Amino acid sequence: MKKFSLLTMLSLVLVMAASSVVLAGDDVLDSGDNAWILMSASLVLLMSPGLAFFYGGMCSSKNIINMLMMVFMSMAVISIQWVFWGYSLSFGEDCGNFIGNLAKVGLRGITPDTLSGTIPEYTFLAFQATFAIITVGLIMGAVEGRMKFSALLIFIPLWATAVYDPVCHWVWGGGFLQAWEVLDFAGGTVVHINSGAAALALVILLGKRKKQNIRPPCNVPMVLLGTGLLWFGWFGFNAGSELASDGRAAFAWVITNSSAATAAFVWMVCEWIHRKKPTLIGAASGAVAGLVAITPASGFVGPLGAIQIGIMAGVGCYFASMKLKALFGYDDALDVVGVHGIGGTIGAFATGLYCTKMVMGPDGVDGLFIGWGMEGFKQLGLQCIGFLISWSYAFSVTMVIGLFLKYTIGLRTAEIQEDTGLDITQHGEIGYHLEMESTSTLKIPAGH
Amino acid sequence: MKKFSLLTMLSLVLVMAASSVVLAGDDVLDSGDNAWILMSASLVLLMSPGLAFFYGGMCSSKNIINMLMMVFMSMAVISIQWVFWGYSLSFGEDCGNFIGNLAKVGLRGITPDTLSGTIPEYTFLAFQATFAIITVGLIMGAVEGRMKFSALLIFIPLWATAVYDPVCHWVWGGGFLQAWEVLDFAGGTVVHINSGAAALALVILLGKRKKQNIRPPCNVPMVLLGTGLLWFGWFGFNAGSELASDGRAAFAWVITNSSAATAAFVWMVCEWIHRKKPTLIGAASGAVAGLVAITPASGFVGPLGAIQIGIMAGVGCYFASMKLKALFGYDDALDVVGVHGIGGTIGAFATGLYCTKMVMGPDGVDGLFIGWGMEGFKQLGLQCIGFLISWSYAFSVTMVIGLFLKYTIGLRTAEIQEDTGLDITQHGEIGYHLEMESTSTLKIPAGH
Amino acid sequence: MKKFSLLTMLSLVLVMAASSVVLAGDDVLDSGDNAWILMSASLVLLMSPGLAFFYGGMCSSKNIINMLMMVFMSMAVISIQWVFWGYSLSFGEDCGNFIGNLAKVGLRGITPDTLSGTIPEYTFLAFQATFAIITVGLIMGAVEGRMKFSALLIFIPLWATAVYDPVCHWVWGGGFLQAWEVLDFAGGTVVHINSGAAALALVILLGKRKKQNIRPPCNVPMVLLGTGLLWFGWFGFNAGSELASDGRAAFAWVITNSSAATAAFVWMVCEWIHRKKPTLIGAASGAVAGLVAITPASGFVGPLGAIQIGIMAGVGCYFASMKLKALFGYDDALDVVGVHGIGGTIGAFATGLYCTKMVMGPDGVDGLFIGWGMEGFKQLGLQCIGFLISWSYAFSVTMVIGLFLKYTIGLRTAEIQEDTGLDITQHGEIGYHLEMESTSTLKIPAGH
Repeated sequence: MKKFSLLTMLSLVLVMAASSVVLAGDDVLDSGDNAWILMSASLVLLMSPGLAFFYGGMCSSKNIINMLMMVFMSMAVISIQWVFWGYSLSFGEDCGNFIGNLAKVGLRGITPDTLSGTIPEYTFLAFQATFAIITVGLIMGAVEGRMKFSALLIFIPLWATAVYDPVCHWVWGGGFLQAWEVLDFAGGTVVHINSGAAALALVILLGKRKKQNIRPPCNVPMVLLGTGLLWFGWFGFNAGSELASDGRAAFAWVITNSSAATAAFVWMVCEWIHRKKPTLIGAASGAVAGLVAITPASGFVGPLGAIQIGIMAGVGCYFASMKLKALFGYDDALDVVGVHGIGGTIGAFATGLYCTKMVMGPDGVDGLFIGWGMEGFKQLGLQCIGFLISWSYAFSVTMVIGLFLKYTIGLRTAEIQEDTGLDITQHGEIGYHLEMESTSTLKIPAGH
Repeated sequence: MKKFSLLTMLSLVLVMAASSVVLAGDDVLDSGDNAWILMSASLVLLMSPGLAFFYGGMCSSKNIINMLMMVFMSMAVISIQWVFWGYSLSFGEDCGNFIGNLAKVGLRGITPDTLSGTIPEYTFLAFQATFAIITVGLIMGAVEGRMKFSALLIFIPLWATAVYDPVCHWVWGGGFLQAWEVLDFAGGTVVHINSGAAALALVILLGKRKKQNIRPPCNVPMVLLGTGLLWFGWFGFNAGSELASDGRAAFAWVITNSSAATAAFVWMVCEWIHRKKPTLIGAASGAVAGLVAITPASGFVGPLGAIQIGIMAGVGCYFASMKLKALFGYDDALDVVGVHGIGGTIGAFATGLYCTKMVMGPDGVDGLFIGWGMEGFKQLGLQCIGFLISWSYAFSVTMVIGLFLKYTIGLRTAEIQEDTGLDITQHGEIGYHLEMESTSTLKIPAGH
Repeated sequence: MKKFSLLTMLSLVLVMAASSVVLAGDDVLDSGDNAWILMSASLVLLMSPGLAFFYGGMCSSKNIINMLMMVFMSMAVISIQWVFWGYSLSFGEDCGNFIGNLAKVGLRGITPDTLSGTIPEYTFLAFQATFAIITVGLIMGAVEGRMKFSALLIFIPLWATAVYDPVCHWVWGGGFLQAWEVLDFAGGTVVHINSGAAALALVILLGKRKKQNIRPPCNVPMVLLGTGLLWFGWFGFNAGSELASDGRAAFAWVITNSSAATAAFVWMVCEWIHRKKPTLIGAASGAVAGLVAITPASGFVGPLGAIQIGIMAGVGCYFASMKLKALFGYDDALDVVGVHGIGGTIGAFATGLYCTKMVMGPDGVDGLFIGWGMEGFKQLGLQCIGFLISWSYAFSVTMVIGLFLKYTIGLRTAEIQEDTGLDITQHGEIGYHLEMESTSTLKIPAGH
């Protein structure tokens, strides 16, 4: 009888083991989670060409190739930097709460069987690579028409190494902002404040374009193409940041869509009232502003919180883009500071207002406008500390890199090159050679 | 001994429980299903920008911004309407077989843990949101170059609330068409007949454009861009409508692709014979017609049925687009009635011809051309009832909304605005500012 | 007591069964694997429109419609061919190690429940369909501006049947190259060498274009659009070729991205040194070359191997595209031979250098530069045999098909048609009708 009891026990243990393994899913590969994050990585990678079109369509047509090329080279250079040392600096074992160590240089020691939660570590590092890529790409919108392409190619890996990798480590890789429990679900500080602050530093160093070199957007439909791809890709960005295919990822999807839609509509309305016409570039910029602002909040807030964040982003980024440049006199060509810097800050702040245990679970926080308590107030303070540190660090380190380049190989192209356009002078290429029946009969009546 | 027997029993029960839970998967989150439907929702969302390009490329270049903007605002407005009351009206608890109740207004009471089958309810509602968005967007192709943008912004939420949400509820949300077992896998009636009928009502109310305002398509490659994104997104539309990542979803993928390909080829051949040249816009329109027609049938028919439906769609929608407008004298600019109204009807009808238990399982129906029996005949009748009711409801309610707008704020822009183009007059924006070397040497020899 | 022991045994067996089924996953549908491969199939399908834009943007603007149409018709025709007999010839039961039998014609006998490993057979055949489609599309870049559209429509199904289907069968469907253990993870021979060899044969038969019909690329931003969609889709191509959502798929994702990025950068640098300017078309071509070369290696090599393959592809394909055409005097308009033929060959060869058991598992092979042993040397030999056979077969059978067409309906359009452009003469369509304010003030200063 003892024997049978032993067998019974054994059988019970086995049942428990089997079900716990299968049901809890810790440290076992989940093919569904992996499918979603592999796909999310692909989606975020697509955001970089999307961003190139979003920016490219707003450029002067004599600088469009240069703009596309700057974003494309961010993809190329950061993809390589990430494999060699970027991933290790961001997610290697923590050194002093500041940066990762070099144990994973060249992705050493990671095999197809190495897991990170329920997904392969390679899936995780692929997903994270795409974030580093797009962050660098975002900066390019500010420097239209006047930055040396050679200087840019040196700027890209320096900036990623000295700014992106540490800040990414602080927030997600085990650094001090993570330890302080600053909330940033998908990159409000890491991606948007970082790039906005870097853009501000660069355009201060570069100086303004001549007025005659500021032209109307060359290809407005291309701006919508970029916006469409960005919106599409942002589902991977935000819902993928859950790193699993579960209900919170689905929440992040809906929250992201709601904020984007609201901000697109609100920006358009602001413009309609303020400048008399609702433009496509306005609505598209609004959508991007809404996507930016919801990024840090996307796994923490409910749908009505998301809509309120969308309203803030639409109004806030519209006026930031209209007013800040004139006020402070810098030439941020395509409003990287106004949309990503300010939008990211709005989002980081609003996360402290609208985050809720309904989405975060019992270990979460009810934000100030949800719980109306000290907990929310404290979180709001943490959020402010988080974005202030990121702004300061990214701005000042970018200044150092920029000054170094300015006084070595030079940041700015020659005047004759800017007048001619960077496409021909930097790349020897022209955007379009279209042969059409001559139909340039477009007459614009007075009053429109 | 009793004790051990108890343990043995317990262990058995546990085994059963564990395996049934894991293997059957009812009411347990399946991360693979969720990954596929989250991705499908993203794909269908991308169809809206895709649609904007499909339509935008066929517009006159003085109305392209307006066209893109109309589709883009469908995304923005319906995303918000859906969260506030659209989802609740469509999928809330049934009221009299006609509409959902208001219990889920503002997505109240749905948490990350709430499931809908094997996926989170948030995934389900995200997926469904994208259907509402694209349906409204489809209407825009009909009204090119003459609809007030302000009127459109009011039309969008009214129409979605009064037409889309109820019809969606009838077919998928527990309404009477679902009770009668009318088959519509992915939206032949809900999406395509709805939008086609609405387009017909609107263009009747709007009236025709002046002949000189009808111009050749401004950007044919952009039409293919739209078609490519639509085709890509349609895999989410149809194969996602299975709401699971299984063999029937895979069937729907292949069926969708087969019908699109067939109709693209067949439309091109019809055009080649009938109008002497095979055009890209023709082939692209054919692909869309094939995608439309297979939509209601995509989870019910086999591959050879799909190819036959593709042939019907190619021939039928080609001639509908060529002839109906002239016959009845309405100005459906980009053939929304011909492609979506007629294509959706062909598909709804053909579902009754080709549906098969091989795909639907033993509880399914063998259509008239599969089983040659009363079962198929009855299903065909049901299909006809389904599309007749949808056509009538969508057409007449759209008429009411349109008439209301016509006699309040007005539907149609002023003549001078139409002549100038809606881009400048409604949006203050021009599509393109391209600087090119002058190469307008295109000579078209006689006879071509 | 016997009774209880029996129950205990039974319970144990059940536990074993349940856990083995769930954990091992053989021959049971895995919804996560299926989600990833359904998505991968969609991604690879999107590559065809992507390819159309990549090629279309590099065309003369009088041939752009024709180029888009040729690629689009590859999608349409092969989608149908695949359902009717292509799949059966490629993956039907093996006949003499050379081709599949006709048992699966019309997809006969395959139901939603039929599995292929852990995914539905329909998912597998959908995924494979997209490979056949893109392979045919790749050829089109070579024949710009001079191939009869009617001849092309006959060429497409003949070529797929006589070249693609057999070679696919050899490598993946149970044919002799698979038996010999030639490594081709995602189609270096099947897709790229096949299309490159076919392009070479066709352009030899077609002859050269007149010099004045070779124009600058009409739409460079569209080239980047194509590149972006190709890069995005290639994740499905390579990481999907694992046919599961696991760690090796994640490896393939990163490996693919690394090679693309490296080759984009390296091609640009070669061009900068050799021709004085880094162009966008160069960087984009480099990315595609890197993607091509990594294709056969993507499930077999590590990240540093991938970067080395990227370098080889960037340098090798750059010089192949610059020099081979002039050397041998054929007119391969958009460098299909240089990028796909040579890139595929580099990749097939380098797979034998860098493949590693770290990625392939204990049954794999350590390539020559990994293990420095006979095993790697032998694999390298096998790889060479593989690509030599593919080149010879594809080139000669394409020659036969081409000669047949040349001496029946004719391959090449009339001279007057080529001068006028194929868009008007073959399709009666013009790419663009853009009305713009006259801003053709572009002056190109001397020296640029």
